[in-house]
Amino acid sequence: MAGTDRRRDMKTGGPAVILIEPQLGENIGMAARAMLNCGLDDMRLVRPRDGWPNPSATSPASGATIVLERARVFECTADAVADLNRVYAATARPRDMTLPVLTPRRGADDMRQAVAGGARVGVLFGSERSGLQNDDITHADAVIQVPLNAAFHSLNLSQAVLLVAYEWFQAGVGCQPAYIPNSRTPAATKAELMGFFNRLESALDSCGFFHVAEKRPIMVRNIRNFFQRADLREQEVKTLHGIVTSLVRGPDSGRI
Amino acid sequence: MAGTDRRRDMKTGGPAVILIEPQLGENIGMAARAMLNCGLDDMRLVRPRDGWPNPSATSPASGATIVLERARVFECTADAVADLNRVYAATARPRDMTLPVLTPRRGADDMRQAVAGGARVGVLFGSERSGLQNDDITHADAVIQVPLNAAFHSLNLSQAVLLVAYEWFQAGVGCQPAYIPNSRTPAATKAELMGFFNRLESALDSCGFFHVAEKRPIMVRNIRNFFQRADLREQEVKTLHGIVTSLVRGPDSGRI
Repeated sequence: MAGTDRRRDMKTGGPAVILIEPQLGENIGMAARAMLNCGLDDMRLVRPRDGWPNPSATSPASGATIVLERARVFECTADAVADLNRVYAATARPRDMTLPVLTPRRGADDMRQAVAGGARVGVLFGSERSGLQNDDITHADAVIQVPLNAAFHSLNLSQAVLLVAYEWFQAGVGCQPAYIPNSRTPAATKAELMGFFNRLESALDSCGFFHVAEKRPIMVRNIRNFFQRADLREQEVKTLHGIVTSLVRGPDSGRI
Repeated sequence: MAGTDRRRDMKTGGPAVILIEPQLGENIGMAARAMLNCGLDDMRLVRPRDGWPNPSATSPASGATIVLERARVFECTADAVADLNRVYAATARPRDMTLPVLTPRRGADDMRQAVAGGARVGVLFGSERSGLQNDDITHADAVIQVPLNAAFHSLNLSQAVLLVAYEWFQAGVGCQPAYIPNSRTPAATKAELMGFFNRLESALDSCGFFHVAEKRPIMVRNIRNFFQRADLREQEVKTLHGIVTSLVRGPDSGRI
């Protein structure tokens, strides 16, 4: 990430808004406007359907052009969240994911605490057509689900972005965060976490752990889930690498 | 008002949404969707620019057709609020009006109290171009103003409707559960967790992982810490046992 980007993000400190396969430029533009309404400016696009930049985003952004100009495009969700420490998945359908489910309001408190502790945070939003997929949700530490009319709960994409951004802003208007996690080392980035996952899964592949091939994806997802939930520190990811190395090397390694 | 309308309104009890001189059918459609997302269905239109019904509202309503079909058109604001007891004006610019100014959240509490007392309530929203005029605001008992980025506070019309409707809905949900673990299996007992810790640590002992003896206690504590934080499920502890077994057995185990 360029130095200017880093300075800018550190200034606002608010969540990055990560749109995965957004379809309509109009929704991207309206999401940009909603973000800037709430003081957010770090938009990230993963495989936008109609490419980027998209002229049809401009008018709905209604002046929030700075957000569109600074938007970054990524090939995959993993890359889009690589520099973040804590990620939320905005979805109405958590589908068998064992993750904490927060309302936007509690999610905003959670974000404020994380940011106060030095973390960089972001929120994933799925496409208009199908929402977030489980593979995207595996990058998340928690789900954000908006309590809505159960009989008609599908939000427009830009409306979903607005509610999350709005609650973020409101949480900052009132009292300051009460709790700052007393961590000795910074939270692991998603890239560090992904590095560990790849390492662990390839070790498990070598050992035949995933011996029923069709079950591999769900097993991988389940394993990533609980490591995600632990809100791992940088140092702890190193320890986990050490554990895998040690176990794989085995009793005959004679390190003592 | 027709008898059926009255029954319907009494059922939901939520605020009427009154759009004054709305310009774009798209915004009317998106507002209808946002309303129904939050359980509201009483939309009133005062002199919509492009007439009514407006076909360009249909697609953005995304299924909230019942709101569009039931929408009523009025020639003036006074008529549109005639049957209401308490009216709020959503505006960023109260312009010399001596009225209480509420956030959407406090406004929602206020509405809930009024409705609980038998009142019928509604919220006025101005046109995209110029917002509410003072003549409209004179019909209001209070102003609703959204705390937003002072440098960029102009909300899209449908976004403003969403925030008011959202806060109305949240005020009725009551306090939110912090954490809804959507887990298929129960949380692991501490005994199951301890069983895994002992297993892992003895495997690590065999591998010489704790080769500096005096550091062993703190390393054990750190490792237990992050597994504790993950709030592991029973099934996940079994998976972790499987991971350790598999890694220790190693690549030559030939399970495949």
